Amino acid sequence: MKIGVFQGPAGSVDTLAALETAAERAATAGARLLILPELFLTGYNIGAPALQRLAEPMHGPSAARASAIAKRLNIALLYGYPERGEDGSLYNSALLLGPDGTRRANFRKIHLFGAMEKEAFTPGTDPLVMAEIDGLTIGILICYDVEFPEMVRGLALHGADLVAVPTAQMHPYGFVADMLIRTRAYENQLFVAYANRTGREGNLDYVGHSSIAGPDGSELARAGLGEELIMATLDPELRAEWSRLNGFLIDRQPHLYGALVAPAA
Amino acid sequence: MKIGVFQGPAGSVDTLAALETAAERAATAGARLLILPELFLTGYNIGAPALQRLAEPMHGPSAARASAIAKRLNIALLYGYPERGEDGSLYNSALLLGPDGTRRANFRKIHLFGAMEKEAFTPGTDPLVMAEIDGLTIGILICYDVEFPEMVRGLALHGADLVAVPTAQMHPYGFVADMLIRTRAYENQLFVAYANRTGREGNLDYVGHSSIAGPDGSELARAGLGEELIMATLDPELRAEWSRLNGFLIDRQPHLYGALVAPAA
Repeated sequence: MKIGVFQGPAGSVDTLAALETAAERAATAGARLLILPELFLTGYNIGAPALQRLAEPMHGPSAARASAIAKRLNIALLYGYPERGEDGSLYNSALLLGPDGTRRANFRKIHLFGAMEKEAFTPGTDPLVMAEIDGLTIGILICYDVEFPEMVRGLALHGADLVAVPTAQMHPYGFVADMLIRTRAYENQLFVAYANRTGREGNLDYVGHSSIAGPDGSELARAGLGEELIMATLDPELRAEWSRLNGFLIDRQPHLYGALVAPAA
Repeated sequence: MKIGVFQGPAGSVDTLAALETAAERAATAGARLLILPELFLTGYNIGAPALQRLAEPMHGPSAARASAIAKRLNIALLYGYPERGEDGSLYNSALLLGPDGTRRANFRKIHLFGAMEKEAFTPGTDPLVMAEIDGLTIGILICYDVEFPEMVRGLALHGADLVAVPTAQMHPYGFVADMLIRTRAYENQLFVAYANRTGREGNLDYVGHSSIAGPDGSELARAGLGEELIMATLDPELRAEWSRLNGFLIDRQPHLYGALVAPAA
């Protein structure tokens, strides 16, 4: 299966138009899934009041437009947006639409990063949001979530083939894009797609370097610093080969990992 | 605190003499701790019968010689050896001796790698083997153990400043030495020292690239392919800086990590 990652704009462009253009290019190239950055629809660093104002429910008007794009182009879409929950809370969410335009999953970011996010958002509570597209099981995380090895491991243990991660990764955290994503793929014997923002937004400089990493730890595709669409084919044989070479998921000793679930001191 | 990592010989040298030479060089350079590879005393790829024959208890004659070296040079030593347990079982162990020559800790490898190890060794059962040297809290793992993020996380949550890892890492697993070790340091906001074997031993080609990684994900020191002593000073300020930049240990949500301790399906 071929997938695409759009390393997208910072700032006040028409993001649904940008989504449509990227989806057209990806679909034309044969991709079945396109992954876009965190808070793609609105921008990330726009302040809590703007996020509150621009938030939509998961079935809001932007989702309807995106759904029509997915259906017209017959490509699945995963993008970040500020979600107004049923209870009125604001979530930092990512919506997965199938190639038929139907909603397949909606993930709410669990690990909120820094003062802005902790002020603006309510954390999600479901660490195992997954859906199947064309036989591929996709787990969803957002940005800081993937930096916690616990999160990707949980998805791997529940059968994820691909962990898809909208992100907004800025300086000085380039290590995550350059090294940590590859390690997550390697140590869990799966694929990881990391879709970052780019450019400058307020006082943040995004590090770009979106990537699609394989179970051998390699980068199947990697973006530079600017706006870019990258694509890769996820080869099941590569996964099978490295599942023979590494036995991480079968050699685990979960009865010895109690420290990881102990309440914080 | 300055520490050293000896990337040591493969094959049938006098390993205690090699240990003494490396310890002299490290102590002269001001190191307070020297870390040596997995099964350093005997060789790694020598077959189960030889490992059985060469095994010693943790207070055996080799430990007595190493203890005298540590005391004479006033340097702590951590090295791998095949251990004959009280119950007669064979363990793949690492012994930590203080600069006064006393035994401070003995770690038994938990995650056994591949057919040879699973045939030869009984797995350890204590994932939190730690000791303090000069005010630095050191957690011990061996090779494959460090590839499980659960293991380093457990040590970090219990206060480790440094995770010291004797290893025998061979092709095609260079990714671990080159990328994964740095990720373990970064994601746990601590130091990781990885002491590999070198050269060829039977049908194994070791990848070298021993390293000392910091909480910013950098390699403070890195070996090439051959025999080498590397050293680095573990700067508490680097750790403090990256504990301000990343909040991994305080932002964890352990109540959502239940998947990690569920019994294997």
